[in-house]
Amino acid sequence: MATTIKNKKNEVTVLAPATVANMVCGFDVLGFALAGPYDKLLIRLTSKKGVTIINKDGYNLPTQPKKNVIGVALLSMLEQIKEDIGFEVESTKTIKPGSGIGSSAASAAGAVVGANYLLNNRFSNEELIEFALCGEEVASGSKHADNIAPCIYGGITLIRSTSPLDIITIPSPLLYVTILHPQIEVKTSDAREILRKTITLKDAVTQWGNIAGLVSGLFKNDYDLIGRSLVDVIVEPVRSMLIPYFDEVKKQSIAAGALGGGISGSGPSIFMLSKDEVTAKKVQLAIINIYKNVGMDFHTHITTISNNGVKLID
Amino acid sequence: MATTIKNKKNEVTVLAPATVANMVCGFDVLGFALAGPYDKLLIRLTSKKGVTIINKDGYNLPTQPKKNVIGVALLSMLEQIKEDIGFEVESTKTIKPGSGIGSSAASAAGAVVGANYLLNNRFSNEELIEFALCGEEVASGSKHADNIAPCIYGGITLIRSTSPLDIITIPSPLLYVTILHPQIEVKTSDAREILRKTITLKDAVTQWGNIAGLVSGLFKNDYDLIGRSLVDVIVEPVRSMLIPYFDEVKKQSIAAGALGGGISGSGPSIFMLSKDEVTAKKVQLAIINIYKNVGMDFHTHITTISNNGVKLID
Repeated sequence: MATTIKNKKNEVTVLAPATVANMVCGFDVLGFALAGPYDKLLIRLTSKKGVTIINKDGYNLPTQPKKNVIGVALLSMLEQIKEDIGFEVESTKTIKPGSGIGSSAASAAGAVVGANYLLNNRFSNEELIEFALCGEEVASGSKHADNIAPCIYGGITLIRSTSPLDIITIPSPLLYVTILHPQIEVKTSDAREILRKTITLKDAVTQWGNIAGLVSGLFKNDYDLIGRSLVDVIVEPVRSMLIPYFDEVKKQSIAAGALGGGISGSGPSIFMLSKDEVTAKKVQLAIINIYKNVGMDFHTHITTISNNGVKLID
Repeated sequence: MATTIKNKKNEVTVLAPATVANMVCGFDVLGFALAGPYDKLLIRLTSKKGVTIINKDGYNLPTQPKKNVIGVALLSMLEQIKEDIGFEVESTKTIKPGSGIGSSAASAAGAVVGANYLLNNRFSNEELIEFALCGEEVASGSKHADNIAPCIYGGITLIRSTSPLDIITIPSPLLYVTILHPQIEVKTSDAREILRKTITLKDAVTQWGNIAGLVSGLFKNDYDLIGRSLVDVIVEPVRSMLIPYFDEVKKQSIAAGALGGGISGSGPSIFMLSKDEVTAKKVQLAIINIYKNVGMDFHTHITTISNNGVKLID
């Protein structure tokens, strides 16, 4: 290939994990990576400028680069590159778009990490996040890094600041995650619009007491403290109205032993954290017992918070 | 003495440290203990019911128990005791009342910790905080534990919740503290009244990103992260107007190498954190250079965040 890029490889395959943003009291700042599901992307360096996208799944996402998360992310990367090169991407999604577990972030993050590898990792993680954020914006209408950052870094990440970008990785004890995905659509832009623009100082103090408690619990491996701190008095009371039986799911999950949980991203998925797999399964059963009578398609699965972000497998 | 309390001792002397509440982005939830100054209290168990207060300093604080922080705290403890006993307290304050570094909290916390020792430690730390809070209320008009908790526990404490009380100790690397005490009066009740009752969600997100960053920085011993996170977009912009030259003090302190800092409690004292003593002294000099021309009495000193709470020395 007639490019000026010297690399051992001209193609790479990556796995990009699902992620949970808006971790309860950590609205807009705390997110985490899941062990599964994940998207698979094969990225090829080409001598043809621009981006070509080939969908290898049944989701029929747009393939025009400027309308596609992968396309926009890679185009913003290419803007920073002088060489006459481009990328071809074969995308095989298993993270269902619109499920609320970072489907678009996985596409964007997977694409830029893979492309950067083919460019001999010339860009920093922070730069990759900026490129991926341009992709995210196409899908969600706003630039929020709390899916992108954990997708790239793995584990639990704090976005302390978006301008300038300041990402902090937070350790955590082993945490099992029970996910419920009710098969309804909640648009991120709608979920954002129903939020109040102002809140009481009193509620804000409660919330930052809880996020400080949650971060402390994660550092201390203190499951009880994590559980006590998984309280959101600001966003959840508003957004949970968009998700059928949210309160009942949360109540029964905690009764079944979950530490706590909440809305994943802007929904419709719900996540519940447990300290062991047995409990996570009890939580799953409790959720199924509620939803089987609701008359709505739904999907549940059990996974863990994973320290792996986007993985190169080639 | 004719009491029903069996104890080796009928009197004890305690040292109760000054404390800083409202640690920048941790308004109402984060506070820390200082290595100095501290108050000295001699507490005697007596067979006479009630509380007697003897001031051994020049501050002329009221000695009627119901009007005195020590008195109210001990009376609330005595309400939980069936025996016909009381306390006599000799109070030697060196923490100037109204300085904003937890003078009333030191009185209240010192008294209840000492009294509890004379009662064979029958009350838990949480119960002691509740008693001391009743005392604090006399001085400040509201029950906030962010001076009381670090005064009793030492170190940096998070009050995740006040009802029920949930105190979490947070480790920290060695931190030097430069204190400026301008000799003006800022009433806690006034400082509370000028705060806005509602804030924007956007500012709240910034604030909880910062408190999560600060807690992470303290756990990680990451001075840079601590410094980047010492930002308060909500309370400081309002309250700093009550403190002459606050912005200049902060700016010059950071220019001299301070990690950051803010208003101690509700003022008027200002604290600046540094990672070593040399820097803390440079910060002190920078502050003196500003204040020497202001035409206002002021006092500065250098200390550290201390892991010691109230200490029994007898």
